[in-house]
Amino acid sequence: MIPVAEARARILAGVTPVAAETVALTEAWGRVLAAPALSRVTQPPADLSAMDGYAVRAAEANAGQALRVVGQAPAGQPYGAVLNPGEAVRIFTGAYIPEGADGILLQEDARAEAGEVTATDHVTPGRWVRRRGLDFTEGDTLLPAGLRLTARDVGLAAAGNHAFLTVRRRPRIGILATGDEIMLPGEPPRPASIYSSNSFAIAAMVRSAGGEPSILPVAPDDRAAIAALVESAAGLDVLVTSGGASVGEHDLVREVLEGAGFSLDFWRIAMRPGKPLFHGRRPGGPAVLGLPGNPVSAFVCGVLFLLPLLAALQGRASFALPVQRYRLGVDLPANDQREDYLRAALRPGADGAPEAHPAARQDSSMLRVLADAQALVIRAPHAPALPRGAEVEAIPLDALGL
Amino acid sequence: MIPVAEARARILAGVTPVAAETVALTEAWGRVLAAPALSRVTQPPADLSAMDGYAVRAAEANAGQALRVVGQAPAGQPYGAVLNPGEAVRIFTGAYIPEGADGILLQEDARAEAGEVTATDHVTPGRWVRRRGLDFTEGDTLLPAGLRLTARDVGLAAAGNHAFLTVRRRPRIGILATGDEIMLPGEPPRPASIYSSNSFAIAAMVRSAGGEPSILPVAPDDRAAIAALVESAAGLDVLVTSGGASVGEHDLVREVLEGAGFSLDFWRIAMRPGKPLFHGRRPGGPAVLGLPGNPVSAFVCGVLFLLPLLAALQGRASFALPVQRYRLGVDLPANDQREDYLRAALRPGADGAPEAHPAARQDSSMLRVLADAQALVIRAPHAPALPRGAEVEAIPLDALGL
Repeated sequence: MIPVAEARARILAGVTPVAAETVALTEAWGRVLAAPALSRVTQPPADLSAMDGYAVRAAEANAGQALRVVGQAPAGQPYGAVLNPGEAVRIFTGAYIPEGADGILLQEDARAEAGEVTATDHVTPGRWVRRRGLDFTEGDTLLPAGLRLTARDVGLAAAGNHAFLTVRRRPRIGILATGDEIMLPGEPPRPASIYSSNSFAIAAMVRSAGGEPSILPVAPDDRAAIAALVESAAGLDVLVTSGGASVGEHDLVREVLEGAGFSLDFWRIAMRPGKPLFHGRRPGGPAVLGLPGNPVSAFVCGVLFLLPLLAALQGRASFALPVQRYRLGVDLPANDQREDYLRAALRPGADGAPEAHPAARQDSSMLRVLADAQALVIRAPHAPALPRGAEVEAIPLDALGL
Repeated sequence: MIPVAEARARILAGVTPVAAETVALTEAWGRVLAAPALSRVTQPPADLSAMDGYAVRAAEANAGQALRVVGQAPAGQPYGAVLNPGEAVRIFTGAYIPEGADGILLQEDARAEAGEVTATDHVTPGRWVRRRGLDFTEGDTLLPAGLRLTARDVGLAAAGNHAFLTVRRRPRIGILATGDEIMLPGEPPRPASIYSSNSFAIAAMVRSAGGEPSILPVAPDDRAAIAALVESAAGLDVLVTSGGASVGEHDLVREVLEGAGFSLDFWRIAMRPGKPLFHGRRPGGPAVLGLPGNPVSAFVCGVLFLLPLLAALQGRASFALPVQRYRLGVDLPANDQREDYLRAALRPGADGAPEAHPAARQDSSMLRVLADAQALVIRAPHAPALPRGAEVEAIPLDALGL
C-alpha cells in the first residue's frame, strides 16, 4: 500500500496546464488566470474627495472665515480652475479636488448660506483626500497568473480596465461508469441493478472545480463496448472511470485500457474509504484516473485526487485542499494503518463553534451518510484514540459545493 | 444608525421564494430544492456482497470443508437459485447474495481449485453483507426542500432514481451602477472618470449564490435615464443599485425611485465600511437594494445583505453567512460604535493554522486591499483592543468564491 500523498504526487507529476482562452469579464468568475492582469490605469487617477463637502484651503477653513462658493465638482466633472484664497468649491465623493485646495470641509461641519460657506469644525490638510494611485498604479500586477478568480478579483480587474481576461480553458473531464448493474436515473428498474450515482456526483465535483464534465454512456461489462468508449474520450483531458479498479475477475477496464496503449499504475492506497485506485497515461491521449466503484470511495478519492488534478490542469498556483480544525463531538477510537476520512456532521457545540460528529457507521456504500456529512475528518495512520473535545483536522465540504 | 442585524431582518421580512422549475440532474448542482426529494427505490435493493469472494453457508466454511462452486454472481446478474449445503457461489462486490447463503468467504481467505473452494479463515455470518435498505428505503426523504445541492446531494438524488429535480429558478438580479463618472472596462478613458467595478463584482457574487445577474447600462446623473432603466427592471426580482445611497445632492436615484412608486427605507447602518444603504419595494415590482458607491462598501454590504436576500429568494432553509474563528496575527485597537468588517489576509501561523492579518489601511475605496484579503474580520461595536494571538470571528471569502 502507498500513502495518499505519494499517490497524489504521482498523479500530478508532469501535468501541464491546458491551453488559454480569452473570456469576457462577466464570464471570468471561478476561472483561473493564465496570464497576470496588469492595471491599465492608475486608481484613483487624481487626488479625489472621499466625502461630500467643500474643497477648501485648510488653513482658511480653520479660521472660521466665510468662504465664497465659486462652483461645484460632482464626481466625473472637475471644477477645472484653480481655487483661489477665500474660495470654496462644493465637492462630492469621488470628485477631483481642484488645484489649490488641500482639504475637505465635510458638509456636516459646514454652514452654507447665500453663496458662502463657513466651517463649524476645523479642517485637517490632506484629510478625506484619496491620493492619486492610492489603490494601484498603471502597470501594477493586480492579479497573478494561476489565481482562481473570486468576485473581488473580478471587481479589481474591472477597475483596472480589463473587459476580457486570459484564463485556462475548462479542463474536459470524461466520466465513465462501468458495470452491467449500473442504470441511469429514470430508466425502468432491472433486477439486481442500481442507479448510477458516481457519474453525477463526480460531474458536479468537476463543475465545482471549474472543469467541464462529460458523462459518457454507461459501459457494460463488455470489452468492445468499453474500448469504444475509451476511444471516444481521445479529445478529453482526463478520463475518470468508476468501478473496475479492484482485482475482481469482472474488472475489464484495466485490460481494455492496457490494450489501448495506456500505461497504468494500479495502487492499493493506505486510505479508507477507497483503497483501490489506478492512474494512467497514453502518449497524446487523456490521462486516466480510475476511481473505486463504491460511491463513497469514489467521492472521497475524487476530493483527494481529482480536485488537485483539476487545479494542476488549470495551472492553479499553490492549490491545497482546505483543512479546518474542529473539536470532536464524540470520542474516537485509535486508527489502524490506513489514513481514514471519516464522514462527519458539523453541529454547533456549547459555545456555538461547530463540532465534528463522525457518523457511527462509515460503510463506503452509504451515500446518505456522506450527504449528511459536512466534513471529512482526517485520521492519520495509527492516530491514537481521541476524547470528545479534542481537536481534529477535517476537509469542509459544503463551502466547496461538494 | 441601526445595527446590521436589524437592517438585514428588515430586508428579509416578507420575502417569498421565487417560483420552482424542473431541471435535469446534471444541471442541479448549486441549485436549491423547492420540494423534498424522496427516494424512489430501496438501496441496496437486496442483501449484497460488500466484497469479492464466495457466498457460502458460514458454518460450513468455518469447518474448512471443500465447497463445490456451483455458479457465479457478478454484480447485476443474480445467481438465481438457492444455495444448497456443500455449495458456494463465486460472488463479486455489489452482487445479490443467493438465497440460502449467510456469509461471504473473502477471496483472499479462500483456496480455489478444480471447481471447489476451501476456506483458509473462518467466515462470520452476516459479515461483508450489505443488508437491503442499509442506505435508504423507498419513500425516505433523501434531501429536504430548501437545501442548496452539493455534489454529494446530486449523487444521492441519482441513487434515489431522480433524473430531474424541482428547484427554485435562479433569482434575477438587475445591477445598476449610477454616476456620470462611471465607465465600462474597455471604453476610451474620459477625464475624471473611473472604470466600473461594482457591477462586475456584484454580478459574480450573484452567480456564486445561484442567482442570474443582469448588468444594466450605466445610468448617468439624469432623472429620465435613471427612470427608464428602473422601469426596464420591472421583470426582475431585485434591482441592486450602487451609488446614490448617500445624502449628496447629486444622488438622484432616490428621487427617481420614489417617483416611480417605490417606498424606500434609507438607513445609516452602524457598520464600517458601507454606512449608507437603502431598501425598497413597489407592489408587483422588484425589490430594490441600494448599495453604497464605494467598491469596498458595496462589496461588504453585498455579502451582508444581498447574499442572505438571494438565499431567502431561493427558499434556503437555515442560511447563515459562514463564520470561522482565527487567531490574530497582529494587535487590534478597540473599536468604536460601528460594527467593523476588517479586510484581512489569512497567513499560516507558527503551527500552520491560518492567522488573520487585517490590512493596515482599511479605506473603502481600496479594491486591491479587498482582493488581497481572504476574510472579513468582524469587530462588534465597542469591541475592546485585542492582542496578537487572540481569537476573532471572520467571514471567509475565498471558499465562497467571493
